[in-house]
Amino acid sequence: MPREITAFSNPLIKRVRSLREKRHRRDEGLFLAEGLRILAEAEEAGYWPLHLFFAAESADHPIVRRLTAGVEARGGEAIETTRDILHKLSGKDNPQVVLGVYRQFATDLATIDRAAAPIWMVAQSLRDPGNLGTILRTGDAVGAGGLILIDDCVDPFSVEAVRASMGAMFTQRIAQARWEEFLPWLRGGPGQLVGTSLRASVGFRMARYAAPTFLMIGNEAQGLPPAYEDACDIRVKIPMRGKADSLNAAVACAVMAYEVLRQIEG
Amino acid sequence: MPREITAFSNPLIKRVRSLREKRHRRDEGLFLAEGLRILAEAEEAGYWPLHLFFAAESADHPIVRRLTAGVEARGGEAIETTRDILHKLSGKDNPQVVLGVYRQFATDLATIDRAAAPIWMVAQSLRDPGNLGTILRTGDAVGAGGLILIDDCVDPFSVEAVRASMGAMFTQRIAQARWEEFLPWLRGGPGQLVGTSLRASVGFRMARYAAPTFLMIGNEAQGLPPAYEDACDIRVKIPMRGKADSLNAAVACAVMAYEVLRQIEG
Repeated sequence: MPREITAFSNPLIKRVRSLREKRHRRDEGLFLAEGLRILAEAEEAGYWPLHLFFAAESADHPIVRRLTAGVEARGGEAIETTRDILHKLSGKDNPQVVLGVYRQFATDLATIDRAAAPIWMVAQSLRDPGNLGTILRTGDAVGAGGLILIDDCVDPFSVEAVRASMGAMFTQRIAQARWEEFLPWLRGGPGQLVGTSLRASVGFRMARYAAPTFLMIGNEAQGLPPAYEDACDIRVKIPMRGKADSLNAAVACAVMAYEVLRQIEG
Repeated sequence: MPREITAFSNPLIKRVRSLREKRHRRDEGLFLAEGLRILAEAEEAGYWPLHLFFAAESADHPIVRRLTAGVEARGGEAIETTRDILHKLSGKDNPQVVLGVYRQFATDLATIDRAAAPIWMVAQSLRDPGNLGTILRTGDAVGAGGLILIDDCVDPFSVEAVRASMGAMFTQRIAQARWEEFLPWLRGGPGQLVGTSLRASVGFRMARYAAPTFLMIGNEAQGLPPAYEDACDIRVKIPMRGKADSLNAAVACAVMAYEVLRQIEG
């Protein structure tokens, strides 16, 4: 039976709310995901929340009922609460009707099986959680295996990243590594490292990609460091017809990824 | 000579800060843009701020000096201020060293000359200002003419949209219209209306695009209304290899736009 919480002062509410901060997420090894669509995606991928919060008025929604039963069967806790508390937990004016607290999963390179997918995303010092989540979502769409985060990237377990991933958080592998770890790991097996570069002379449609392709996306403001560009097997440019010299990082990633997908699928 | 403002209580500071809200932007007909890169882009496109704020420590930066001289020559006001006040005005922890207050420009369909570009973006009920700005930025990159906002879109003059546009705000035309106005306008001249649709059977690379192409992007959660899809000359789908059934709106727009660009450029 779901327990009911309606008081803002409840210690669990305070603790869950604190997971909006990276420090608390790291200390607890937990993170938040919201919304029927994302929680159903998590379920399908085999992830269950430790705590499931739902709005009282949504108790009879079929997905909420299924999630509640599933969570309780696995020793987790389902909690009926108010829209106001969901608003407080999510930080959104218009909160979703469900919110789950999940255990963070392992994010070391050893979790990556490069043979499992033809495309992998690699982001370097990515700062924007929305971009990170959007890259995961694009990864899911193109059949990528996951996202490898190099150097000082934003926390993939942040509320904004999970939200922007639209559930791909749970279907894509996520690894975090320093460049000094990543490069030897990459060179320890098959794989083509591809980067976009302002210095490149080859258009992104002219290069020939072969699986597994590791698609590098640089920091939003700086792009890839020159040494990282130099380490790429293929450096390409995306045509820019206007005044700007770059695309949004997640957009550039998607334009590249769909070209790689086209070539790999033939 | 720049005037100096260091007090938070200064009426101009309060007024400029209020421009972070849509209501005040509309009432005053003004909007904010931040950062050397974006303000330089604005200058190049012929837009000058009415008020230019800069951090005292950046007074000697060549772009700041040029902007200051340009603003004063045009009857605007350059204001030397503190990082704290810039922080307060921009709402960012790490504010840019310059911030400009600009007059909103006309956004009716009559401002659009369809012959001026081979691609135009059309967004319907777009809710996220970051997506709106990113679509403008992509529009600049592919040589689009601008963005037509249909129905209840987020304010293109919002701080987040301007920021995400990275200056494309000033190089792309922006129009706002109801669907009932847009469709007759579109049909009053040449132009192919293209939409992505889950119901489409044709892959986006199989369709044949011809300039001017009007690329429709639907609301983030709902996609395009069926009646709007029906009005499209071409309905296509972008392949989805994973669990999700859609891409981020700005990402889908970019993937489509680069295919249109490829075909139009041959």
